Amino acid sequence: MRQAGRYLPEYRATRQRAGDFMTLCKTPELACEVTLQPLQRFDLDAAILFSDILTIPDAMGLGLSVVENKGPQFARPLRSGNDIRNLTVPDMVTDLGYVSDAVRLIKRELQGKVPLIGFAGSPWTIATYMIEGGSSKNFSKAKGMLYGQSEQLHRLLELLSRAITDYLNAQIAAGVDVVMLFDSWGGILSHAAYSEFSLAYMRRIIQGLRAADTGRATPIILFTKGGGLWIEDIARSGCDAIGLDWSMDIELARKSVGAQVALQGNLDTAVLYSSPASIRRQVAEVLAAYGQGEGHVFNLGHGIHPDIDPDQVAVLVDAVHELSRPYHAG
Amino acid sequence: MRQAGRYLPEYRATRQRAGDFMTLCKTPELACEVTLQPLQRFDLDAAILFSDILTIPDAMGLGLSVVENKGPQFARPLRSGNDIRNLTVPDMVTDLGYVSDAVRLIKRELQGKVPLIGFAGSPWTIATYMIEGGSSKNFSKAKGMLYGQSEQLHRLLELLSRAITDYLNAQIAAGVDVVMLFDSWGGILSHAAYSEFSLAYMRRIIQGLRAADTGRATPIILFTKGGGLWIEDIARSGCDAIGLDWSMDIELARKSVGAQVALQGNLDTAVLYSSPASIRRQVAEVLAAYGQGEGHVFNLGHGIHPDIDPDQVAVLVDAVHELSRPYHAG
Repeated sequence: MRQAGRYLPEYRATRQRAGDFMTLCKTPELACEVTLQPLQRFDLDAAILFSDILTIPDAMGLGLSVVENKGPQFARPLRSGNDIRNLTVPDMVTDLGYVSDAVRLIKRELQGKVPLIGFAGSPWTIATYMIEGGSSKNFSKAKGMLYGQSEQLHRLLELLSRAITDYLNAQIAAGVDVVMLFDSWGGILSHAAYSEFSLAYMRRIIQGLRAADTGRATPIILFTKGGGLWIEDIARSGCDAIGLDWSMDIELARKSVGAQVALQGNLDTAVLYSSPASIRRQVAEVLAAYGQGEGHVFNLGHGIHPDIDPDQVAVLVDAVHELSRPYHAG
Repeated sequence: MRQAGRYLPEYRATRQRAGDFMTLCKTPELACEVTLQPLQRFDLDAAILFSDILTIPDAMGLGLSVVENKGPQFARPLRSGNDIRNLTVPDMVTDLGYVSDAVRLIKRELQGKVPLIGFAGSPWTIATYMIEGGSSKNFSKAKGMLYGQSEQLHRLLELLSRAITDYLNAQIAAGVDVVMLFDSWGGILSHAAYSEFSLAYMRRIIQGLRAADTGRATPIILFTKGGGLWIEDIARSGCDAIGLDWSMDIELARKSVGAQVALQGNLDTAVLYSSPASIRRQVAEVLAAYGQGEGHVFNLGHGIHPDIDPDQVAVLVDAVHELSRPYHAG
């Protein structure tokens, strides 16, 4: 999940200085600055690239703007099969080079202290925004296409898969140590539709990353919000780790997938609305639920909401370090 | 799910005549009228009482209004432990008699042609609205209480459980043939929190209904949106049927719960945004996924969105009748 964000006053200051969200994403120095902010404040084990899952459709010409409290909006959403046929894979240097530039800058600043996690949205998740024109409540247009014009949707997902593969390979080439595929909206699908329209394309991306990734073996994390029901399918996708939201018991998840994949998660972010004592208690419960042995990457089950007090995040990070010690023994 | 609603022009006309949503709920003649509207238009196998899950907190004095496109809002949400301690179970005659009156009127009009389904919200779901003051995106107040002041939340849920038990018993006494417990927001919880703060109280209500229900054995349906992961726990709650949203494969659900409970569901409502051919295809898939044998009640996985064309619903209802025939054979 994004570490930097509106819950941090220093982030809000940089964003104000940038003028708007997309300038923040597109200016490597600023993206680097906000990427590093959480590490200056908290004792974190990794940095997460500051960017957005919609940089790819923006580079395809859809015209992205991110309006405070309104979310992302496209000036030119996809309106027809023709719009889809006219799309092409963006160039990773001329169109999206700012992301690789940011990665190189961040890596230099990190001096190897902690690894850097890169990411991309999943094809289905990105497609929903391109079709709806922004955030959606019912996903009526995207699902209408899924059920009614599935060939068009498959064409779009295929193109996005190629773009995302290139995009993550570019991030890896620029230096990220881990990549994460973010499937924010896979969980709104039926099991059958998830398999056909989301997971199948993520599997294709994973294959494309493996094929290009000679020697370094960059770990790949797959996160489908609300995907707990399909965890066994996800574990067979070829990914190295599964990001879990908080709805699934991590003990049961571990039993389902065995040692095939690592598990990342899965504290309910809303715990941060409670007290320090309660945060420590809930951290202890997640650690105990996963139990002894390798393969657990502690994380929140979702991004941090803007109204969270950063001091609560500090309590969380310290609790994870302190309470996880017995699990690292031996 | 609600059958009547804004997708029907005749509903919009009655609501306009009523002036506002709560007058529609509180006037038995109008509630009866909109309850019967879907049956006049579609060949349905049951009627669903028109009401709202928030009638109980309204009767507790929180002052409910339902604003078009904004959802429910309470004039006096719960703000402190004191607010919770001051709550009492409403009287089912003086405070909520309008619901029983509507049930009696509808039963008279139905003349036994189809059964009538009554319903209530789950304690956890109703509690979220009472604490948040209306709809919520992050449920920060409700979850803050869950993690930080759990005794207060338990006190509220215990009181709501008693009120809901009385309320559903009053609906049964007035004539409903089936009752449904609607847990719209159980799915936002972790597994442990769902067990402790939602399912435990629904189990208590089921026990309270069984104890009071001498002879008639009114079936009880339990629906937790996003509860697919916990279906085995739900099946052990004592309910007769589980409402499934569309995210879970109904074939896998049937394998998980066996013959313990019937399953109601689970077509993705968004299929109604596609074409008649696609609607028929998806209906056929849900029917085939459940397969032969008893215990399937075909339903949508969610309520019908206001922008759905009623003619698409007619296609759906006819497809279910026609395509389910082979499954009724023998």
